[in-house]
Amino acid sequence: MVTVTVWNEYRHEKEDDEVAAVYPDGIHATIAEGLREAGYDVQTATLDEPEHGLTESVLDDTDVLAWWGHKAHDEVEDAIVDRVVDRVRDGMGLLVLHSGHYSKPFKRLMGTTCSLKWRESGEKERVWVVEPGHPIADGLPESFEVPRAEMYGERFDIPAPDDLVFTSWFEGGEVFRSGCCYTRGKGRVFYFRPGHETYPIYEQEEVRTVLDNAVAWAAPGDGPAPYFGNAEPIEDLD
Amino acid sequence: MVTVTVWNEYRHEKEDDEVAAVYPDGIHATIAEGLREAGYDVQTATLDEPEHGLTESVLDDTDVLAWWGHKAHDEVEDAIVDRVVDRVRDGMGLLVLHSGHYSKPFKRLMGTTCSLKWRESGEKERVWVVEPGHPIADGLPESFEVPRAEMYGERFDIPAPDDLVFTSWFEGGEVFRSGCCYTRGKGRVFYFRPGHETYPIYEQEEVRTVLDNAVAWAAPGDGPAPYFGNAEPIEDLD
Amino acid sequence: MVTVTVWNEYRHEKEDDEVAAVYPDGIHATIAEGLREAGYDVQTATLDEPEHGLTESVLDDTDVLAWWGHKAHDEVEDAIVDRVVDRVRDGMGLLVLHSGHYSKPFKRLMGTTCSLKWRESGEKERVWVVEPGHPIADGLPESFEVPRAEMYGERFDIPAPDDLVFTSWFEGGEVFRSGCCYTRGKGRVFYFRPGHETYPIYEQEEVRTVLDNAVAWAAPGDGPAPYFGNAEPIEDLD
Amino acid sequence: MVTVTVWNEYRHEKEDDEVAAVYPDGIHATIAEGLREAGYDVQTATLDEPEHGLTESVLDDTDVLAWWGHKAHDEVEDAIVDRVVDRVRDGMGLLVLHSGHYSKPFKRLMGTTCSLKWRESGEKERVWVVEPGHPIADGLPESFEVPRAEMYGERFDIPAPDDLVFTSWFEGGEVFRSGCCYTRGKGRVFYFRPGHETYPIYEQEEVRTVLDNAVAWAAPGDGPAPYFGNAEPIEDLD
Repeated sequence: MVTVTVWNEYRHEKEDDEVAAVYPDGIHATIAEGLREAGYDVQTATLDEPEHGLTESVLDDTDVLAWWGHKAHDEVEDAIVDRVVDRVRDGMGLLVLHSGHYSKPFKRLMGTTCSLKWRESGEKERVWVVEPGHPIADGLPESFEVPRAEMYGERFDIPAPDDLVFTSWFEGGEVFRSGCCYTRGKGRVFYFRPGHETYPIYEQEEVRTVLDNAVAWAAPGDGPAPYFGNAEPIEDLD
Repeated sequence: MVTVTVWNEYRHEKEDDEVAAVYPDGIHATIAEGLREAGYDVQTATLDEPEHGLTESVLDDTDVLAWWGHKAHDEVEDAIVDRVVDRVRDGMGLLVLHSGHYSKPFKRLMGTTCSLKWRESGEKERVWVVEPGHPIADGLPESFEVPRAEMYGERFDIPAPDDLVFTSWFEGGEVFRSGCCYTRGKGRVFYFRPGHETYPIYEQEEVRTVLDNAVAWAAPGDGPAPYFGNAEPIEDLD
Repeated sequence: MVTVTVWNEYRHEKEDDEVAAVYPDGIHATIAEGLREAGYDVQTATLDEPEHGLTESVLDDTDVLAWWGHKAHDEVEDAIVDRVVDRVRDGMGLLVLHSGHYSKPFKRLMGTTCSLKWRESGEKERVWVVEPGHPIADGLPESFEVPRAEMYGERFDIPAPDDLVFTSWFEGGEVFRSGCCYTRGKGRVFYFRPGHETYPIYEQEEVRTVLDNAVAWAAPGDGPAPYFGNAEPIEDLD
Repeated sequence: MVTVTVWNEYRHEKEDDEVAAVYPDGIHATIAEGLREAGYDVQTATLDEPEHGLTESVLDDTDVLAWWGHKAHDEVEDAIVDRVVDRVRDGMGLLVLHSGHYSKPFKRLMGTTCSLKWRESGEKERVWVVEPGHPIADGLPESFEVPRAEMYGERFDIPAPDDLVFTSWFEGGEVFRSGCCYTRGKGRVFYFRPGHETYPIYEQEEVRTVLDNAVAWAAPGDGPAPYFGNAEPIEDLD
């Protein structure tokens, strides 16, 4: 069974009543609930736990790591970031959610600033499937609406995605590449835009379908572990 | 100097007063005017000329071919389509404009249906630059508006572009990958969405900048002409 | 269960004793045997059957079509090519094997000539995994040898693959992109180079692993069936 | 005129007589000579200069930075790496040469380990053009040989290139993606494999053609400088 660890910064929920009303047990609990219903073996981890909850032992039991952070990206210790990034390169899947675009692991894996535009006006978002044959689009309609969303707008400063699955339309006039697939080393990385802390977006059926599909897509395979370094001498080759 | 041939179906302008009022000398004349101002050597060709104006001799003098068609795609003879497609594979650049998405050469080069959604409501389009480092974005603002446009909406059934330069937002709720780069053989193909026959879009400054840049980008280089077929035997290789 | 149809031209085996000695029941039988052992529900079809064995009813029962052809590409009727291509665009997976690079369906889906260099010298091929995290590389070593192979060399005139999984090295001095993934419409297409009619390559374990993985990768999903055509008017959108 | 800064670690040449015999004035001098002959305005910079020769003022005068390093990657100060990486994201071109695959700027921009296999046996390399329509292939034959080279072999742990221009074949049995294009932010990055310190590879005509083309390709354009941060409120948009 595929194992998932849902990581959450878990600060907004403890400091802001509006957020606590939407996600009383933390965003991670709501995300984890959806993934458990989808049949995954799910654990959670948060910033204020020792080693941010991402010990070697926890990561040993993690096929796919989902990451939600926003206001405390800088408090994530570099040693833990190194650990996460190394795991991805070795094959662990990584789902980067919404404001996680500015998280240290995502910026490290992308090599870019991952900057964008934003606006908190509670406007409507329409998520369009631009690649209906991609496994992350399974079971979705060709578009779905997030009734109230924080807007993220282009230019999103990322490398061109290996696969672009979703593009969002916003009421205020912006567009955004909102479902982006990458491979880094042996690991697969999926960025998914919807999911603000003040809206119950992670309870929305289509969003849960996307996360379910993304875990399946990002789960590690059984490909070769390449050898790096000095190759065998030529005389042994034939 | 880079030579451009602007091809136009040239039927709407002769049959529809509304179109004739916007493009009295044909859409091709307006596009050609813009490219001449940009410094290119430009000729035009239209459907009802012999060989659709695309004789071998005309194509011998064509670095980049721009293609506008809409209501008479089926009247383009297959032999001329073969000729155009072969030229592209040999290095000729091809700009496919607006309703040219359904033209025979574009469908042949893409391998897909090139279908999409459309709506003629005169709504506003915002064209966002998603890849500001791409040469086709030179000299542009990060977005520009087409005040009244026919809407084209996703799913646009194309192969994932090699480079996605623009994405459009529409007032009615749709998005569209509106600037798409491909390589086919040695030739470069650029699809650009804006440009309906009932709006003076090809007179708009930003649109002219895009077409200028696209010609420069698509112009053939001096890369090797690969040999295909039986390779030299091994004994000759060392 | 995923259903596979293995299509073979089936001419070499009947006309050439050397080929018949290697593939006495036809290349399709050997490929089908490997896929059955991998757990798929497999049927076969050949050129000389009515409708080349690819009736609508057979294709209704086909999740993934594997295609082997070489000397009789031109005898495949265009109506059947249309049918296969339409099915791929609607989601059917397609595996194109070895000399199938020149088949009508592959050329139609690629939009290029699909030309290459070749040499029949029985030389050694080394297939290198360049993308070890790709599902088609599951269970493989980081390289494997085909002891005697027909050489295919670059330039391979294809669109740049969406994913490049394998690159081959040949004794005589050539390289080749030998495992290439594409999406066309909702369908996934995988080109795999090894597999000449005079060598028992389809009995080789690593090759069977690749075909097994490729079927799993190319099998259709459950993504949305996009609507194409006139979109709903704006007034209905809000 | 496009300005180029050629950066070299410049240690091998001072410490090793064999290297000094090949590159008496340093590898940077030979590379710079080739680029000056191609018509560029070229300056050089080396590790042991203050700020490694890459002051803000030098970078203000740099359209494209070429980077050669090998044994002292770790001595490059992080503050200078930050500076270089920020410049690339803002549009400066970067050519990463041979053993520069392990340089800090390249690893930071790729997000991967950039590991590979190597072997110093003085074997023959054949560089094949796999994308003959790419501007970096202008003026080249479809393949060329480097008579004696250090081998680099796959798996090369990089993100899949946006454009793969060259693939190398090695006498000993390996292949390598040896010409790889990326965009990071507004900047273009080109990795080019050939170029070991003990062989006069940077005097070879085809290699000089590649570097000439790569500078032209990587030179910054005039695309928009996107705004990042809080977007204008909705009420101002219409």
